[in-house]
Amino acid sequence: MMNSFDKIIEWYLERSHVVVYNVEQISLSELNEWSFNKKTGYWKHKSGKFFTIQGIEVHTNLGNVRHWFQPIIFQPEIGILGILTKKINSKRKYLIQAKMEPGNINKIQLSPTVQATKSNYSRVHKGKKTTFIDYFLGSEKSVILADRLQYEQGSMFYGKINRNMLVEVNDDIELPSDFYWMSSDDIGNLLHMENMINMDTRSVFSCVLCKDESEHPINSDNDILNWLSLLRSNCTIKTNKVPLYSLVGWNLTPDIIYYEEDKYFSVIGVKVTSDSREVTTWTQPIFKKDRPGFAGFLAQEIHGTLHYLVQAKLESGKKTIYLAPTVQCSDYEQKIDSEIYLKYFFNNNNVIYDKIQSEEGGRFYHFLTRNMVVLLDDDIDISKYYIWMTYNQILTMIDHGYFNIEARTLMTCLNVIKTKRYKYD
Amino acid sequence: MMNSFDKIIEWYLERSHVVVYNVEQISLSELNEWSFNKKTGYWKHKSGKFFTIQGIEVHTNLGNVRHWFQPIIFQPEIGILGILTKKINSKRKYLIQAKMEPGNINKIQLSPTVQATKSNYSRVHKGKKTTFIDYFLGSEKSVILADRLQYEQGSMFYGKINRNMLVEVNDDIELPSDFYWMSSDDIGNLLHMENMINMDTRSVFSCVLCKDESEHPINSDNDILNWLSLLRSNCTIKTNKVPLYSLVGWNLTPDIIYYEEDKYFSVIGVKVTSDSREVTTWTQPIFKKDRPGFAGFLAQEIHGTLHYLVQAKLESGKKTIYLAPTVQCSDYEQKIDSEIYLKYFFNNNNVIYDKIQSEEGGRFYHFLTRNMVVLLDDDIDISKYYIWMTYNQILTMIDHGYFNIEARTLMTCLNVIKTKRYKYD
Repeated sequence: MMNSFDKIIEWYLERSHVVVYNVEQISLSELNEWSFNKKTGYWKHKSGKFFTIQGIEVHTNLGNVRHWFQPIIFQPEIGILGILTKKINSKRKYLIQAKMEPGNINKIQLSPTVQATKSNYSRVHKGKKTTFIDYFLGSEKSVILADRLQYEQGSMFYGKINRNMLVEVNDDIELPSDFYWMSSDDIGNLLHMENMINMDTRSVFSCVLCKDESEHPINSDNDILNWLSLLRSNCTIKTNKVPLYSLVGWNLTPDIIYYEEDKYFSVIGVKVTSDSREVTTWTQPIFKKDRPGFAGFLAQEIHGTLHYLVQAKLESGKKTIYLAPTVQCSDYEQKIDSEIYLKYFFNNNNVIYDKIQSEEGGRFYHFLTRNMVVLLDDDIDISKYYIWMTYNQILTMIDHGYFNIEARTLMTCLNVIKTKRYKYD
Repeated sequence: MMNSFDKIIEWYLERSHVVVYNVEQISLSELNEWSFNKKTGYWKHKSGKFFTIQGIEVHTNLGNVRHWFQPIIFQPEIGILGILTKKINSKRKYLIQAKMEPGNINKIQLSPTVQATKSNYSRVHKGKKTTFIDYFLGSEKSVILADRLQYEQGSMFYGKINRNMLVEVNDDIELPSDFYWMSSDDIGNLLHMENMINMDTRSVFSCVLCKDESEHPINSDNDILNWLSLLRSNCTIKTNKVPLYSLVGWNLTPDIIYYEEDKYFSVIGVKVTSDSREVTTWTQPIFKKDRPGFAGFLAQEIHGTLHYLVQAKLESGKKTIYLAPTVQCSDYEQKIDSEIYLKYFFNNNNVIYDKIQSEEGGRFYHFLTRNMVVLLDDDIDISKYYIWMTYNQILTMIDHGYFNIEARTLMTCLNVIKTKRYKYD
């Protein structure tokens, strides 16, 4: 007899077979329903909705590079990343969706119950209604357990935030075949695999992680806030919109936008044919990357409590410093010599977590990130942009929106080592 | 023999006599070193520093008025509001400054040790060095106890934040005659008087208020964050800069900028002659108001714990909703019929606090606010923009920057009823 986890894998594989779709890279000039405005110099959907791809010029007083140009995604709407939950036979379950996204390296990943921009669920594209969306918009049949506004990728989205929601449903729900009720153990097992639990699901769970019982932090909450206030008050960032064709270092061709040294990322077009999305066929621009990025926390036991080394990081899409993993870079193989803390992750015998996970496949094409947490044996020097925080301190700061998505999703991955995972389990 | 508080009053009166200065209202066209740029349509200092007065057009989806024009102060620098503290004969003391500001109705009020814009302390105006500033900029002779970035008035400043700092000094300090070491009891007594403790001092102390011992909140911290996320995700505000001469409803004369129905505030010029500031004589534009505003919390004992009714408020200088007193309005005598909770403050037998206090005199001329906290006997209906919070919950949310300055300074006033006032007492 199959155990519950085997059944999930079977369902996942079945969904991968059943869902008929095709994702094809096309030239930017072949994007239907998208247009490049020669005057403003950016890409937009003809409805004026969804998102635009614009250029920015950034000046800051932090870091090695203090002036640069880049394309960035503007999507000023606040979307919903929402997971339904219910006690079924007195066991807490979460409703997960097998969802195709054009950028997914393995086509289907496990998404929140609802993953929708306002354009999606208000049906700008005249497609099908987003399944289960009503439970998240205020319903007598559901109760909001958690609702947090959290930033998306700050180096590729301009100030984009989403609602991360966990909502308890009292209804009996008839499940479409692409949905599955999973336990926290199931989620934990899937996080030990690569590219299965998508970024949005990891982001939602990061807002409901269960705190540890007792801790002895070496830095008080007040120390942490003082440290961050000082850094924020000394940091400046100035961002100007510029036309994509004025981005120094970037090449615009009719096919693709790419950086001249083949670094960072490129902007390509994709054409999607599918029967599992709200609309059947569409084209869209998408950010592409060829080599995996990296997000990792160094951990160390200090005074009997595990601490994580948190970085104060400025990202181009945000107005000030937010908190990030110890190391976060878009191409770690190239950065091995320059990122000071990267070396501690390799040739390390105490690896707590080490898996490749994907960025969100709606905007990012084959964007992979190696997620690592390792335990340090020896003391290391800490620069002023880093601070040791305990697990509970990190969770409190996640609650108040201080952590970037790379750090949040990494905490959800790390959480698999805990016995009690989510607040409402 | 005089007691310690009498000595403070004596010192305050003496300072009021000693400090020779004159504040005179002048025409905007007489402002030396300030110029009105006809192309951009705003007032700026000829150095390009300090602040500018610009026009904005605001569109929002909240409130009764959803589209308006107004002048607003742009001051993108992060200033320092800092108080030095020291244990003297094992009693905690705070170093308070008797400071003249041109907008003060009583000329001198009691300010933080340091109250300086970056232009001030980096000496753009080539004046005297800001006294004691070195202790706040990183010194071996001082320790930062608290450092918080907090918003100024959101309806009159565009996104202005300051560092609110409490810094312990180990040095023996030679006191200039305009400084005085005060205890928390002294501060408490002065807060029972009107227009003595200035707004900046009240703002700094709001960041180090001492929590109550035990509480039974009717709304959990999670409830509060969920409530705020929902409101923030549904609120939109769009602000465009427009020239001052394009502000609909506002009149620009060479003398003054004022609203046509004599509502809100006006922009006037003042000329100051003084020996107690970093520079001796200057002119500047300043916001003026003729009738007092109002900031008040309704309080109620619920399940044995005092709760305060907190308002989710959108202000033109901010990008989203922040937390505010139950009622906050610029002219309460006119609003008595329209503000739903205002009536509960009057004809009330349980007044906890009721004093007139001043807005900061560097930018606001004779701007008075009646600060009230009253206890409700009967239950009242709560709209979706309001939530009951306990004292400790408010202090936690102040720590993370959710509360506006009107609410923060009111909490400092209310705090006078507590036995232990500040964290480090």
